Amino acid sequence: MLPPRSVLITGASRGLGLEFVKQFLQVPSPPEFLFATCRNPDSAKELQEVAKSNPSVTVLKLDVNEINTIEEAKKAVESKVGDKGLNLLLNNAGVNKKASLEEVTPAMMLDTYNTNVNGPLFTTKAFLPFLLRAAESSSPSEPSSAVVNISSIMSSIELNEKTDAYDYRPSKTALNMLCKLLHNELKDKGVHVGCLHPGWVQTDMGTTKAPLTISQSVCGCLQVMSKMKAENACVLTDYTGKPLPW
Amino acid sequence: MLPPRSVLITGASRGLGLEFVKQFLQVPSPPEFLFATCRNPDSAKELQEVAKSNPSVTVLKLDVNEINTIEEAKKAVESKVGDKGLNLLLNNAGVNKKASLEEVTPAMMLDTYNTNVNGPLFTTKAFLPFLLRAAESSSPSEPSSAVVNISSIMSSIELNEKTDAYDYRPSKTALNMLCKLLHNELKDKGVHVGCLHPGWVQTDMGTTKAPLTISQSVCGCLQVMSKMKAENACVLTDYTGKPLPW
Repeated sequence: MLPPRSVLITGASRGLGLEFVKQFLQVPSPPEFLFATCRNPDSAKELQEVAKSNPSVTVLKLDVNEINTIEEAKKAVESKVGDKGLNLLLNNAGVNKKASLEEVTPAMMLDTYNTNVNGPLFTTKAFLPFLLRAAESSSPSEPSSAVVNISSIMSSIELNEKTDAYDYRPSKTALNMLCKLLHNELKDKGVHVGCLHPGWVQTDMGTTKAPLTISQSVCGCLQVMSKMKAENACVLTDYTGKPLPW
Repeated sequence: MLPPRSVLITGASRGLGLEFVKQFLQVPSPPEFLFATCRNPDSAKELQEVAKSNPSVTVLKLDVNEINTIEEAKKAVESKVGDKGLNLLLNNAGVNKKASLEEVTPAMMLDTYNTNVNGPLFTTKAFLPFLLRAAESSSPSEPSSAVVNISSIMSSIELNEKTDAYDYRPSKTALNMLCKLLHNELKDKGVHVGCLHPGWVQTDMGTTKAPLTISQSVCGCLQVMSKMKAENACVLTDYTGKPLPW
């Protein structure tokens, strides 16, 4: 389905989100509109620099847990994309407190769930009319609208042999079910729902111990996303295109 | 591992929880201590009736989302079971708001997650010292301590073809990951962690359309539980013993 005409990315101030913005600017046909959203645009220096030299990039404030910021971002997006809608929503913002059984508290559990599950759910719900509009305005044989959720291999119940991240793992497992629910909801409407494991990446979350650079991960994710189609099954896929068990 | 010497059940005022209490009283060697817990013991008339005629049953107030009630229940349990610990914790309390994509709100998502995931997690964390004590005091060849979490077939990402229960499905999928985390944590300590789908049952949650009576479901669950061993893999199992995909 790539290259999309318009893309919205959450958590774009750093890490994978910022790299998605940079690499979307480098693809053969870059998006006409690239909405790079984050909680605090004022402190997102590097993103602001990228936006300064690339007029297709619009930096918007969007906190996935503050509905009013989502609504404000919606207005800004609509004023740009108009009837053509939004082709790609990339739910990238996420958090991992890495709490052990001993450390974990109810507040940590709810906070991580709020960002990692409610975030993608209510951002998708808000932008759904635009995604549907994009699916309708594209040719039926080539639907060009998608929601891609950044999940993790750590969400896989089958593969988990560890006792770490009591806050994070269940939230990402729940996100996978949300992907399946949204997939069932949208598959006949031309909107694909993707569920992507970006690899273990050298971000603030992944630490410097990770084997993959941010650039390698995002490059792989973009290739996987380029092969997504609305009628595809909903599968947890890693950045190389390999399916992972739930 | 059945029959356990001591059992604690959450959500025991009605539905499956109440039936577990009743059927535990009927097994060939009933538990010496049966802690039937619920949010409002004063209004749990039927449970109070059962307790009146069965001295092994202790009704305790325990709201899985109020840590202080868990701590109070702990004291009452310890005063009865002493050094022998608790053999079985049955995390049965749960909620399902059955919210569609249109209906679902952030508060609904957090509320259901709080009951269905934080509930089992923090109840287990609180009673873990007693479960470990029971595992240690039993013979090594026959570990007799378990946490059994009531999950649902609706938690299965693989099997889900519907667009219902945006609050409930992800919470139960997350609960399955919690089971796996606890399994990894406890498998070498003689505490089994079970993950059980009780079937579609004629409870308030399941409605009268359900094919199974409460009695049939609980009877099946008790048989499945009787075959649980600490070294078993962590598998989502239905009330007939059939494994279900994650």
